[in-house]
Amino acid sequence: MKTDVQIAQEAKMIPINDVAAKLGISDENLINYGKYKAKVSLDVLEELKDKPDGKLILVTAINPTPAGEGKTTTNIGLSMGLNKIGKTAITAIREPSLGPSFGMKGGAAGGGYAQVVPMEDINLHFTGDFHAITTSHNLISALLDNHIQQGNELNIDPRRIVWKRVMDMNDRALRNIVIGLGGKPNGVPREDGFDITVASEIMAIFCLASSLEDLKERVGNIIIAYRYDGSPVFVKDIHAQGAVALLMKDAMDPNLVQTLENTPALIHGGPFANIAHGCNSMLATKLSLKLAEYTITEAGFGADLGAEKFFDIKARFGDLKPDAAVIVATVRALKHHGGAKKEELGIENLEQLSRGFENLEKHIENIHKFGVPAIVAINQFPTDTEAELKFVLERCKELGAEAVLSEVWAKGGEGGIELAKKVVEVAESKQSNFKLLYDADEPIKVKIEKIAKEIYGADGVDFTKSCEKTIVNIEKMGFDKMPICMAKTQYSLSDDPTLLGRPSGFRVTVREIRVSRGAGFLVALTGDIMTMPGLPKVPAANNIDILPSGEIVGLF
Amino acid sequence: MKTDVQIAQEAKMIPINDVAAKLGISDENLINYGKYKAKVSLDVLEELKDKPDGKLILVTAINPTPAGEGKTTTNIGLSMGLNKIGKTAITAIREPSLGPSFGMKGGAAGGGYAQVVPMEDINLHFTGDFHAITTSHNLISALLDNHIQQGNELNIDPRRIVWKRVMDMNDRALRNIVIGLGGKPNGVPREDGFDITVASEIMAIFCLASSLEDLKERVGNIIIAYRYDGSPVFVKDIHAQGAVALLMKDAMDPNLVQTLENTPALIHGGPFANIAHGCNSMLATKLSLKLAEYTITEAGFGADLGAEKFFDIKARFGDLKPDAAVIVATVRALKHHGGAKKEELGIENLEQLSRGFENLEKHIENIHKFGVPAIVAINQFPTDTEAELKFVLERCKELGAEAVLSEVWAKGGEGGIELAKKVVEVAESKQSNFKLLYDADEPIKVKIEKIAKEIYGADGVDFTKSCEKTIVNIEKMGFDKMPICMAKTQYSLSDDPTLLGRPSGFRVTVREIRVSRGAGFLVALTGDIMTMPGLPKVPAANNIDILPSGEIVGLF
Repeated sequence: MKTDVQIAQEAKMIPINDVAAKLGISDENLINYGKYKAKVSLDVLEELKDKPDGKLILVTAINPTPAGEGKTTTNIGLSMGLNKIGKTAITAIREPSLGPSFGMKGGAAGGGYAQVVPMEDINLHFTGDFHAITTSHNLISALLDNHIQQGNELNIDPRRIVWKRVMDMNDRALRNIVIGLGGKPNGVPREDGFDITVASEIMAIFCLASSLEDLKERVGNIIIAYRYDGSPVFVKDIHAQGAVALLMKDAMDPNLVQTLENTPALIHGGPFANIAHGCNSMLATKLSLKLAEYTITEAGFGADLGAEKFFDIKARFGDLKPDAAVIVATVRALKHHGGAKKEELGIENLEQLSRGFENLEKHIENIHKFGVPAIVAINQFPTDTEAELKFVLERCKELGAEAVLSEVWAKGGEGGIELAKKVVEVAESKQSNFKLLYDADEPIKVKIEKIAKEIYGADGVDFTKSCEKTIVNIEKMGFDKMPICMAKTQYSLSDDPTLLGRPSGFRVTVREIRVSRGAGFLVALTGDIMTMPGLPKVPAANNIDILPSGEIVGLF
Repeated sequence: MKTDVQIAQEAKMIPINDVAAKLGISDENLINYGKYKAKVSLDVLEELKDKPDGKLILVTAINPTPAGEGKTTTNIGLSMGLNKIGKTAITAIREPSLGPSFGMKGGAAGGGYAQVVPMEDINLHFTGDFHAITTSHNLISALLDNHIQQGNELNIDPRRIVWKRVMDMNDRALRNIVIGLGGKPNGVPREDGFDITVASEIMAIFCLASSLEDLKERVGNIIIAYRYDGSPVFVKDIHAQGAVALLMKDAMDPNLVQTLENTPALIHGGPFANIAHGCNSMLATKLSLKLAEYTITEAGFGADLGAEKFFDIKARFGDLKPDAAVIVATVRALKHHGGAKKEELGIENLEQLSRGFENLEKHIENIHKFGVPAIVAINQFPTDTEAELKFVLERCKELGAEAVLSEVWAKGGEGGIELAKKVVEVAESKQSNFKLLYDADEPIKVKIEKIAKEIYGADGVDFTKSCEKTIVNIEKMGFDKMPICMAKTQYSLSDDPTLLGRPSGFRVTVREIRVSRGAGFLVALTGDIMTMPGLPKVPAANNIDILPSGEIVGLF
């Protein structure tokens, strides 16, 4: 069997200008990065502003399991399937983070015969967007520490700096560090740490901003520290937002590449799905809606985190109207949710499947709560039995969700035709009555409780004492009227990763609330959220190589 | 008077494919980065390998002064002047470091009417080469710390790790840090620090490598640490060189841009000129020699550091034969070397000029020691008097160096015609008898003494005790047979920055020797060398902005 990178390197790519031309984008509006990658000028969005939007389809999933659901693969395959049945469709997905490429195997550009290419570029430097974000973020850090070094006119409390540094690397040794050592010429000593670049608030802003001007304003509003008197210090206080905007000017244009079947893909931005909202850039989505009849987009993790944030954060800010949501599931993953052990996943077991199906059931109910039609895509595996597939298809139907089998990993767009037809049928016949779950003006606790009870199925929410104090402070500062970005384990509907299926009788504990004032949301943390991954004992990097022939090995 | 960025933004650029076409480079061999930047495929170098090389002209300078000599500006202006008189000429210069753009005002892409454009891109992310180097460097760091965390099979002594991390930022607070804090899951605590990216040994390798394969091998040979038994640990011991090569694959292709007069410029690589050799990439120089009749290249700092290293390191490794060297000087800078105070620089003073001229005199003698014809370019200022200019021109002639006035800053290529004519005259009539100063196989101390005595004019060299010990160790490891890269103050021919003009009766003290085994040289440090700059009290970043119109302000 061929590896992903082998399949990708055998792809017959067409010039990106030809991909663009089919969407009506002229060479004039294309900024090439080699022959197969380009940025699309935002002038296109301006030119098409009066054109009606195409359909917006969100691809989401059940709670992820070690078995893997194939959300991005399904997304890409669905867009190829739509193209096969004569619809113009664009897959609008996130840019992968470079760091993890060197840790565990497993790319973020799809898999099998449903990939975006050139995958090795997309997974590494791509068009430099993440490097621009890293640089912008660390420029703010350097200006902040320099401000303190040069006399600290703003009275910044070095113990209350909330702006860490970032690097696009899995590097656990940088999680907790002490900087500014070595005496007077070398800065003021203080505790610090590095997050991975995708955790930067600039990444979240990048993916929500409507223009470079909007980005600049939002960056200016980031809270980086607090003064000795407790008042917040913003990026604009150290005059960094203009330089950041300059550093970000090229990054703002969405990136156009192609799938293995030469259909268009917009890959732009990729914020964390826990402390941020986990969706590709607003600009790429808006551009896609103007360019194609169907925009197939995604959100990180399962529907409890990804879809909820896509709806309540991204759609809210961008005034988006999702037409349907595709929930990706596999029989194996459902059996995992039903208690199957790893070695049992390939054995027919309707009892485990039935128990695990409750996880999918809850996600279908949740999508319906937002007024959006739900379609279930069963990402088929060779070990799935007829009885198992039949069970899932029938149960979905009972819940009012159309369900179809998908074979895009093995067959590309051909394997996604059935799913594509179903998506068209639903999007063109069922009216989406999209509505938000809560009003941003509601009290912080009310908003969090609504999410926990209605989406997670919790009995209620407990707030730690320090969290209660933070909420009072946030209200005092007047930053409480923003949507909530939940940072919760992705493995369970609850905040306990071991509770699989559809847990009940649990409460959610919020232990910290962070203000992402620039991005425009409040992050509610329910547990330890890792914002700087580490490398495994044998990192993938050890086996990655580029041979004299140009062949790439070891990368997924 | 217009600022550099204003002049640059008013430039009438032509498509980079047209610039390339004039050099005989087809679109097929061009990797576009937008309309005005491109990488040139190394296939071009392979295709032209049997074509004879053009002339190679090194632009160097007297010891730099606060007044500024305009070396890069002269370099760019000379290439434009050559193009004006009908010669194909390429300026092959270094990529600027991004970090310093946000510190002090002052770009590294020329100035006035002798600039390369788009200057704002060249000075910021450009084509991402430096980001690739930063990432590669920090990947090695992450793999190194992960190795220690996962059991330290190689027995690495955490107190003897010589591989720091890097960032392309002026950030003094990162000079001395402690990493790996926070307990067992978060790494092994140790002292560390960040250098600026241009100080990375990967940058030096990048600029000396003859191919991606060569880069991979050299990276594998970098010494990153020592074991408890004192033996060296190489990058290849942690299996990182393959992944680094993959990260660097695109960066290897030289970058093509244009001057304000639409003539070609290859801008590629930019290592530090103290702990490294300070020249653009070998591949860009070699490519340029095949593409143009004249390659105008440069080396960092004054001729004592820049030219010596260009000759003894770059020309040695690349088997280059420099045809002539242009030494840039200004009347003001010479008077500074003669003891003039800042406020006296604009006042005629032949005595100060005569005393300061001795600095130039020594550099002319040095260039001649390498068997290379020297040409002096007087970068003219409005305050220069006729008597002063006459003095310099005549004294140069007496020393056997042709001297001409240059006005490229104010007049572009037109102001460089006289210099261009002189360069052609010298390169085509005088035979260069280029020879190296020393044999790489000579003992370390002999090599350093030759440089100090013959180039700096020192009476001798003192080695600190710890340095003596290091030399013995290096000889034991068998790494002594490499050329020397001197890390010395750029402001004086001596190792004391306050000794201006042509000091005599001094000795040079070498206090440390570092092994850049991957780059292939030994770094001899004569004083404190800053490898991570800081920001000033009012950083340039505070005033940098991009306006809604797209106009860029505050950047130089």
